Amino acid sequence: MKFELQYNDSQSNARAGLITTDHGQIETPIFMPVGTQGAVKAVHMPELEKDIQAQIILGNTYHLYLRPGLDILRQAGGLHKFNSWNKPILTDSGGFQVFSLAHNRKLTEEGAIFRSHVDGSKHIFTPENVMDIERTIGADIMMAFDECTPGDAEYSYAKKSLDLTERWLDRCITRFNETECEYGYKQALFPIVQGCVYPDLRKRAAENIASKEAEGNAIGGLAVGEPTEKMYEMIEVVNEILPKDKPRYLMGVGTPANILEAIERGVDMFDCIMPTRNGRNGQLFTRRGILNMRNKKWANDFNPIDAEGTSFVDTLYSKAYLRHLFIVNEILALQIASIHNLAFYLWLVKEARKHIIAGDYSNWKRSIIDDVTRRL
Amino acid sequence: MKFELQYNDSQSNARAGLITTDHGQIETPIFMPVGTQGAVKAVHMPELEKDIQAQIILGNTYHLYLRPGLDILRQAGGLHKFNSWNKPILTDSGGFQVFSLAHNRKLTEEGAIFRSHVDGSKHIFTPENVMDIERTIGADIMMAFDECTPGDAEYSYAKKSLDLTERWLDRCITRFNETECEYGYKQALFPIVQGCVYPDLRKRAAENIASKEAEGNAIGGLAVGEPTEKMYEMIEVVNEILPKDKPRYLMGVGTPANILEAIERGVDMFDCIMPTRNGRNGQLFTRRGILNMRNKKWANDFNPIDAEGTSFVDTLYSKAYLRHLFIVNEILALQIASIHNLAFYLWLVKEARKHIIAGDYSNWKRSIIDDVTRRL
Repeated sequence: MKFELQYNDSQSNARAGLITTDHGQIETPIFMPVGTQGAVKAVHMPELEKDIQAQIILGNTYHLYLRPGLDILRQAGGLHKFNSWNKPILTDSGGFQVFSLAHNRKLTEEGAIFRSHVDGSKHIFTPENVMDIERTIGADIMMAFDECTPGDAEYSYAKKSLDLTERWLDRCITRFNETECEYGYKQALFPIVQGCVYPDLRKRAAENIASKEAEGNAIGGLAVGEPTEKMYEMIEVVNEILPKDKPRYLMGVGTPANILEAIERGVDMFDCIMPTRNGRNGQLFTRRGILNMRNKKWANDFNPIDAEGTSFVDTLYSKAYLRHLFIVNEILALQIASIHNLAFYLWLVKEARKHIIAGDYSNWKRSIIDDVTRRL
Repeated sequence: MKFELQYNDSQSNARAGLITTDHGQIETPIFMPVGTQGAVKAVHMPELEKDIQAQIILGNTYHLYLRPGLDILRQAGGLHKFNSWNKPILTDSGGFQVFSLAHNRKLTEEGAIFRSHVDGSKHIFTPENVMDIERTIGADIMMAFDECTPGDAEYSYAKKSLDLTERWLDRCITRFNETECEYGYKQALFPIVQGCVYPDLRKRAAENIASKEAEGNAIGGLAVGEPTEKMYEMIEVVNEILPKDKPRYLMGVGTPANILEAIERGVDMFDCIMPTRNGRNGQLFTRRGILNMRNKKWANDFNPIDAEGTSFVDTLYSKAYLRHLFIVNEILALQIASIHNLAFYLWLVKEARKHIIAGDYSNWKRSIIDDVTRRL
């Protein structure tokens, strides 16, 4: 993996760059649609590539490890071959899901023991076997195995948790360096900065990670219950320290406004289930604000879903039609909302990149941020 | 509406024709995907037009009358404008749904009184108001309001039911002739032959309907529980009598084999929920047989879903991937299976048309019918 830092905003820490992987290039800042189980929910691969213009998608290690399982993924020749997405893929490390989805979970020095939420079967994730699993899935970017500390954790817990995450990181790096991709292309490993909302822990974590000289670095454990201002503060603390010549990935974030603020603070990569999950619940993000498509007010609004939108759904279908589809529980409603929201998120980061390059990022952000946050 | 009978098979009653409506032409024999609530489930309009190559779709009067309701449809300028499907649309008359979905239904000479399955509200469908409703929906082809007699009805019930359907037909025709399309294009009205499995009733019904000189005629009340051989026998009885120079529509049928047999017996138009509903349940129809995608045997079959299929999904995704999507309940599974099955049904009738024109329909049917019926 290669990262070229192409532009630095003179007014802020915003940056534009280019990541090159064996499955193609990624222009940053970028948003990565979440394909938890090997599919972005309700979206066909050609729609993802051509209409939404996604450049990289996520897969979730926890889910893919359970189903279809490593045997199938290995026989397929990795996730790209399995799901027909031939551009870059990033996998998380499963740690977050073990703590949010799995049953009977128990943390030890060795790793995390848990029972599958699918069939109750018992499993263990360790730094070593998670590296092996991500090798088998075959993502272009692999994430280190960590404990995602809750946003409201006490200092003493957050510190103990960070200690463990740091020991696990060393084990991840060792195993990663001892192994190779099973399918002949290159994979990169990103460590994850934890430390909850405590500046000194975040600082220490960022310094430790900076010393590892990884190909890219991630900020985890944010947008997990802490106040938004705390999140922005932690991003600032961390990005002071993380190497400027490596991409920075803010995990699991967030609203359009969160993304614009984080870009201004030097973040390059994002993922979030919000555009797809909220879309399936009828919430549409647009340049002019947020629409609840179940609202009666759209019942006879025959204007396009989003006259300024970039997706084919935006001008093909009307608000009244989409509202009807939601009210009568048609699957097509979920498809339309998911495509629209993802296309909007990809438009947003592309536009951000344009303005970073044009040198007016902060002005543009100020001009748009109230609009994208407004409830319509 | 215009119907041009283009080819008659010399070996059988199979025919190829061309229907012309104000929303475009339809080559027969044709299969019409079902868009119950104004959307074909899990399928985008451009997929329906370009990938599946549907030439006409159905809307269900009962559902559309309840939601979005006539006010919205009228304000939209009819169903075509509302759902962005600009090719021909056919609407059923709601009779079948009143008897299969609605609550507290009661049949009188006047019409059918029922309570909505959505909110329990009370409604009446009469021959007159159903004509008005179909005018407001704005389908190119409207169906007469009838009672769909159950497949296992006693003779005396079937006869009484047919008497009512015939009186209702006259009221439908009167109302239809007194009214006009609200949107400026032409609409046609198709009467429906009932009579259960009783040849004399079917004959009488067909003769009565033939005398009405409608622009097309339908055969209803089949594939509703009677033996398949009875269905074929009824089609033969009816098609002896129905005018040859008008399209014949067999309502709600059926399996690929049913369609091939009915084409051989002179049917031109079909609709059925089978490709979409069975698809959503994991059943795929192909040229080589029927696949249950949930079956373990596909778990590591990395071959295309259908190497001979005409849809983009057929060669883009593998059987193993589609099986995985079904097992983990991904919406994309429903999308893929629905598109595949509809594309297969449209391929089947297009291929049938080709062979009618080539003069070898019956031979071709014999060569394919065991294959399409086989469980793989």
